[in-house]
Amino acid sequence: MDEPMDYASAGVDIDLEGSAVASLIGALGKSVRKAGTPGAPVDLPGGFGGLIEFGDNLLALATDGVGSKLQIASALNQWAGVGIDCMAMNVNDLLCVGAEPIAFVDYVAVPKPDPEIHAALGASLAEACRLARVTLAGGETASLPGIVTELDMSGTALGWLPKGEAITGEHLQEGDVLIGLPSSGIHSNGYSLVRKVLEHGGVSYTDDAPFDTNALGREIMRFAGQQDTPISVGELLLNPTRIYCDPVIDLLNGARGDEQFSLSDIRAICHVTGGGLSNLLRLHDSLGWHISSPLTPHPEFTWLQQIGGVETREMYRTFNMGTGMIIAVSPQHAEAICEWLSSRMQGTAIIGTVVDNGHKVTHALPGVEFSHY
Amino acid sequence: MDEPMDYASAGVDIDLEGSAVASLIGALGKSVRKAGTPGAPVDLPGGFGGLIEFGDNLLALATDGVGSKLQIASALNQWAGVGIDCMAMNVNDLLCVGAEPIAFVDYVAVPKPDPEIHAALGASLAEACRLARVTLAGGETASLPGIVTELDMSGTALGWLPKGEAITGEHLQEGDVLIGLPSSGIHSNGYSLVRKVLEHGGVSYTDDAPFDTNALGREIMRFAGQQDTPISVGELLLNPTRIYCDPVIDLLNGARGDEQFSLSDIRAICHVTGGGLSNLLRLHDSLGWHISSPLTPHPEFTWLQQIGGVETREMYRTFNMGTGMIIAVSPQHAEAICEWLSSRMQGTAIIGTVVDNGHKVTHALPGVEFSHY
Repeated sequence: MDEPMDYASAGVDIDLEGSAVASLIGALGKSVRKAGTPGAPVDLPGGFGGLIEFGDNLLALATDGVGSKLQIASALNQWAGVGIDCMAMNVNDLLCVGAEPIAFVDYVAVPKPDPEIHAALGASLAEACRLARVTLAGGETASLPGIVTELDMSGTALGWLPKGEAITGEHLQEGDVLIGLPSSGIHSNGYSLVRKVLEHGGVSYTDDAPFDTNALGREIMRFAGQQDTPISVGELLLNPTRIYCDPVIDLLNGARGDEQFSLSDIRAICHVTGGGLSNLLRLHDSLGWHISSPLTPHPEFTWLQQIGGVETREMYRTFNMGTGMIIAVSPQHAEAICEWLSSRMQGTAIIGTVVDNGHKVTHALPGVEFSHY
Repeated sequence: MDEPMDYASAGVDIDLEGSAVASLIGALGKSVRKAGTPGAPVDLPGGFGGLIEFGDNLLALATDGVGSKLQIASALNQWAGVGIDCMAMNVNDLLCVGAEPIAFVDYVAVPKPDPEIHAALGASLAEACRLARVTLAGGETASLPGIVTELDMSGTALGWLPKGEAITGEHLQEGDVLIGLPSSGIHSNGYSLVRKVLEHGGVSYTDDAPFDTNALGREIMRFAGQQDTPISVGELLLNPTRIYCDPVIDLLNGARGDEQFSLSDIRAICHVTGGGLSNLLRLHDSLGWHISSPLTPHPEFTWLQQIGGVETREMYRTFNMGTGMIIAVSPQHAEAICEWLSSRMQGTAIIGTVVDNGHKVTHALPGVEFSHY
């Protein structure tokens, strides 16, 4: 049998990326912005979004790109989803600290501008703004024929929250309950491995998906003009990343308002991105996480795993495996919060608990265990 | 003689870029954020930064990249300036609406991460944060071997200002005085043309600069280990873009405070980027701009023009030609404001006036005239 495929052999070395980022951060000094002035940095344990002071509020910036999922969009010339991916990768990060996204800017680098592609990106960003409830506050298109061979897209989201209301994970306790929000598919991580697996399997993006794509209440975004044909592999792979502003922002506002649960019941929020379930480890220094009743992964995950002979642990370290966001809540109100969420997002369910057996993630599937991010 | 070189033939089609961006913007709808709520868009005439409401304040986002200047940094493996370029392109845009930059995030896309390069980028960003007085609130490094062949870098800056204090150009009047702030060199625009001209002229980045590089009080950032050698063409080309937060933010705060001039004396601020002096046209719908006493262009502009046989008008439409920022002020306090600025930034001088002879830019040099951006 072939060597099993993994993310590193697909050309992405997470460790090298981590060490490059650490080098960059290591070279930074302290901010010149003094505590108490607009823009002064706020240190939060584990926080994904970069928080800064702004009067009685905190502001947060998140910046991220669509990544190699764009190569499939380019290959198929299908752009309706990528603006949503770009938005989702950023606003979902902001949600993790309890920040409400309010504005977004995009950055697009192309070898040569193409007004038709840009019109499609604009339509996609417009839909993304509607879903995330943000204002598109600008953007940049750069022509860089000497640097990019095809379109790259990233963006930055701005969010805010009242001072003192950041969700940091610091009040997490053993016994807290994990609620899983379903993903819409592969989202925007792990596509280097996806592409390698499909190439290995001789699968074309235009092939029909060889399974029923219905799962966890998701809908597949169809390509224009192909609504009457079976769903293709390309449509499945380009299905946009889910944006969780609805219901997460409403949950936070409900908790601030007259729901039976309060903000202190919402202990931590995790966006399951590259690194998969190991992202949970960022939220607390010592507690562990046990996923006892995972959401069922979408069928494409099983299919990719089979074609590529990818090990189960590697799948869970690379992909979201069906769960795009995890919210840790107090056990007292876990049922009520889960019900509140699942009435707004079908497929939401309790998937596990916070445990005190070491800083690691464990899972109902044997071997799926992570002790470092 | 050869055909004169221009920006379009160097591979950058400004019109195509404009039409792509227009397509994108045309596809956008209205923001879902209602007036009076955080994130609601604020429409300002001509404004560079995307402004949104936030209580009693406005927030502004600006996003831009370093562009093809990065190809020279890559060729020479010299990164100390590019973080400053990236910062400058964004914060200088924020200044144009009177917003004070407070935070920044960077986005770097690479074929493969390199911790040494990232350490250099981190050091450059740290210096940029110090110069712009902002907090680095996050960043992203993406490994995209299928999309980028060498390093791309962009960023997003966040700024703020009190509601009602935006500088929009709407109070501009005939007779207002233009103050020019010197650039530090080519800044971060026009490098496709620069590279083409140098290739045509057989000039190597490691050649000594064939002229005295001292001009307008600037300093050239030296490459590590080369401080004792003559300044090279590469050092000249990679000299980082000037960041104008100091003195522009101080000027605005002085105007709010006890200086003899007030905020209403500062009518418009223009960041001279790609498009050169034609950027002025964005600031008002009908008034014109006459540059009667331009700052002396740095010697590299003259040199590039000669090697490439570039027409003078094309030079002024592509490069800053010595003036990186232009501030239009009331004639009553022009002398005082110019003195205030030039005591903080050597080489600052009055360069022209606002005129009412049509929506165009005219210049002491015949032929340098622009009637569309």
